[in-house]
Amino acid sequence: MQINIPRGTQDILPGEVEKWQYIEKKLKEICDKFQYNEIRTPIFEHTDLFLRSVGDTTDIVTKEMYTFEDRGNRSLTLRPEGTASVVRSFVENKMHGYASQPIKLYYLGPMFRYERPQAGRFRQFVQFGVEAIGSNDPAIDAEVIALAYTAYKSFGLSKLKVVINSLGDTESRVAHREALMAHFAPNIGEFCHDCQNRLEKNPMRILDCKKDREHPLMKTAPSILEYLNEESSRYFEKVKTYLAALNIPFEVDSNLVRGLDYYKHTAFEIMSEAEGFGAITTLCGGGRYNGLTEELGGPEAPGIGFAMSIERLLSALKVENIELPIEKTIDCYLVSLGDAAKDYTVGLLHTLRQAGLSAERDYLDRKIKGQFKAADRLHAKYVAVLGEDELKNNKINVKSLETGEQKEVELSELVAVLKDFTAY
Amino acid sequence: MQINIPRGTQDILPGEVEKWQYIEKKLKEICDKFQYNEIRTPIFEHTDLFLRSVGDTTDIVTKEMYTFEDRGNRSLTLRPEGTASVVRSFVENKMHGYASQPIKLYYLGPMFRYERPQAGRFRQFVQFGVEAIGSNDPAIDAEVIALAYTAYKSFGLSKLKVVINSLGDTESRVAHREALMAHFAPNIGEFCHDCQNRLEKNPMRILDCKKDREHPLMKTAPSILEYLNEESSRYFEKVKTYLAALNIPFEVDSNLVRGLDYYKHTAFEIMSEAEGFGAITTLCGGGRYNGLTEELGGPEAPGIGFAMSIERLLSALKVENIELPIEKTIDCYLVSLGDAAKDYTVGLLHTLRQAGLSAERDYLDRKIKGQFKAADRLHAKYVAVLGEDELKNNKINVKSLETGEQKEVELSELVAVLKDFTAY
Repeated sequence: MQINIPRGTQDILPGEVEKWQYIEKKLKEICDKFQYNEIRTPIFEHTDLFLRSVGDTTDIVTKEMYTFEDRGNRSLTLRPEGTASVVRSFVENKMHGYASQPIKLYYLGPMFRYERPQAGRFRQFVQFGVEAIGSNDPAIDAEVIALAYTAYKSFGLSKLKVVINSLGDTESRVAHREALMAHFAPNIGEFCHDCQNRLEKNPMRILDCKKDREHPLMKTAPSILEYLNEESSRYFEKVKTYLAALNIPFEVDSNLVRGLDYYKHTAFEIMSEAEGFGAITTLCGGGRYNGLTEELGGPEAPGIGFAMSIERLLSALKVENIELPIEKTIDCYLVSLGDAAKDYTVGLLHTLRQAGLSAERDYLDRKIKGQFKAADRLHAKYVAVLGEDELKNNKINVKSLETGEQKEVELSELVAVLKDFTAY
Repeated sequence: MQINIPRGTQDILPGEVEKWQYIEKKLKEICDKFQYNEIRTPIFEHTDLFLRSVGDTTDIVTKEMYTFEDRGNRSLTLRPEGTASVVRSFVENKMHGYASQPIKLYYLGPMFRYERPQAGRFRQFVQFGVEAIGSNDPAIDAEVIALAYTAYKSFGLSKLKVVINSLGDTESRVAHREALMAHFAPNIGEFCHDCQNRLEKNPMRILDCKKDREHPLMKTAPSILEYLNEESSRYFEKVKTYLAALNIPFEVDSNLVRGLDYYKHTAFEIMSEAEGFGAITTLCGGGRYNGLTEELGGPEAPGIGFAMSIERLLSALKVENIELPIEKTIDCYLVSLGDAAKDYTVGLLHTLRQAGLSAERDYLDRKIKGQFKAADRLHAKYVAVLGEDELKNNKINVKSLETGEQKEVELSELVAVLKDFTAY
């Protein structure tokens, strides 16, 4: 009986995987330019980490985590997002003491959320994200947003919308929170069960509710921007000034609330405005999380970051009809006739590869026509044909599949000849 | 309170992660030359997959798997190895019907085994592996071994030992199995509990036991090589001939039994013979697994592959004192004096990066000396200094940290000047 892939997960197969490789390489190059270094954290963490950081009122923690006990009765959870792990590592490895500050990191890897699978939404999905920890300079908020924007632009996406907001500092949030409670409390019975819970715990997250988004009280809710204290306002103004200096077009949306509890000051999203992209238009989201290092037992160290889903980036590319520049060819396919020649190509093939050429031969005892077909399928630039006669005379016949030109060369010169040809 | 990383797992931090990036890039290049394409399968699979493929008498399945139920009551397991998932994907995606045959795949990613953590052994570790499915040509066995050997060589390892064996086809294994049972049965009481279980289920795995390796009956056990039928012998001879043609030195060890149940014919390991490498000297292991596709509900499709641990490769590099050629520099660090100049560098920095240069500035309000120190720490090739006067005149001062040379250039020419400099 066949065993299938777990629901909500996918295999990424040759033909598709080259896009992932291209995207990852490009993202790494951008991070190099922006001076963000890679960090790799484990696939699972102690469950406490996410309860403490992502927040125990969020959908992620209450409904979507893959939590289990290991054989030593530890409660572990497959990471649902990347920031908590990076900050855990920052604290555990005492990175606040490193000479180079701020600490600028990126990660790229699978995350796990038990959601209802749908188009473009998987239970295992891949996130790329960056975190800059240790600076309170609004210029780094602009840099982080610029990195995300530059990444999307570098893949050719043009229908992008950058939306920013400020969630203020603690003082501003407390004032806003009181205003929100006063605004929603009288009619909270008209809202969904989740929102009723949120009213006391975290009323700002009501603004983020998908079920109640059409309720008239949503539109008239007090804006956080009216409750920013002077410092928060000044910070937000600086971020906007810098974004303008970077030529990044943006809109301010005072209703932008990120799904995680730990954000302060800057919050942002980049969305696709391409037609036909469907209901989920957010490509990436992030924000500032001052206070999270302390929450996780470390010293004060203000941070900002974002995360983007690679699956959603691929969807956006598709909707905008963008083909990534992926080329699949091989330098040489070895065709052989007769057992002696066939055996000889085993060593010859290895010689070509050791010389740095991509090369292939037949492993299915195909006739010469089948071997040529295989060469075609692999988009071979050259085919080298070895028959019994050629082998006896230490020769081999090299043919360009592009031009049809062919010539006989010494076997010992094959590498040099191919290197000469494939250099152009 | 601080939350720590789960036991047996590790963070890979900047300073160390560059080695991983280098290794992965190199492995990908080798796979390109050898024409193996990447496949990515999920981190977890249905538990049944591993019971059925890895085998329910193995240590992996009986003691080491991370198995849990998801919120839909499915039994899932974090993958303990890569072959089962690749073959599951081969069957599920009907790859036997693809035009290009055999199917040559590689994977690179985390695997999970609940073992006692010790030096070089983690509960989450990274494996690189290849699988060639759909050919019974002994030349592909040689190719797979050559790929592993080429990989280690490409990193500079010299103290390598390649050990091969044949486990024969089913007929040969049945004959050998009977001989083994007859050999061990009279004295099985002297062996460990696991071996006593293995006697009936899979006596060949007694040869693999770590506890009983010194028992005298181990040395006198009947060799599989004496029980190979004619076809199995002929196959093994061909593999050896091809390995010789590829100039790969190898030894035959008839006691080489791989820890997984599904192997047939060729089995191999590559070990480090470097002094001081410790008890675990196996760097990589693999073999042929004809029959596994059928076991997983697919059509007949003979396969061969190997897996190597990246952690162990890194240990081997360390023991052989090999430094990977990793270079960490940035093109330009922007130093500024005064608020106006400082603000100006926000946009200027982005311009440099958009032009393809790696560049950095200060985010901590450092004085000029601190900024120069930061540039040093990042091994900046050039420092560009912008003061109030320069800004007024649209100039900037560029200094080479290598030669100490400096000159004043137009602000608008900075990109061109740096690109000119850094091209060499």
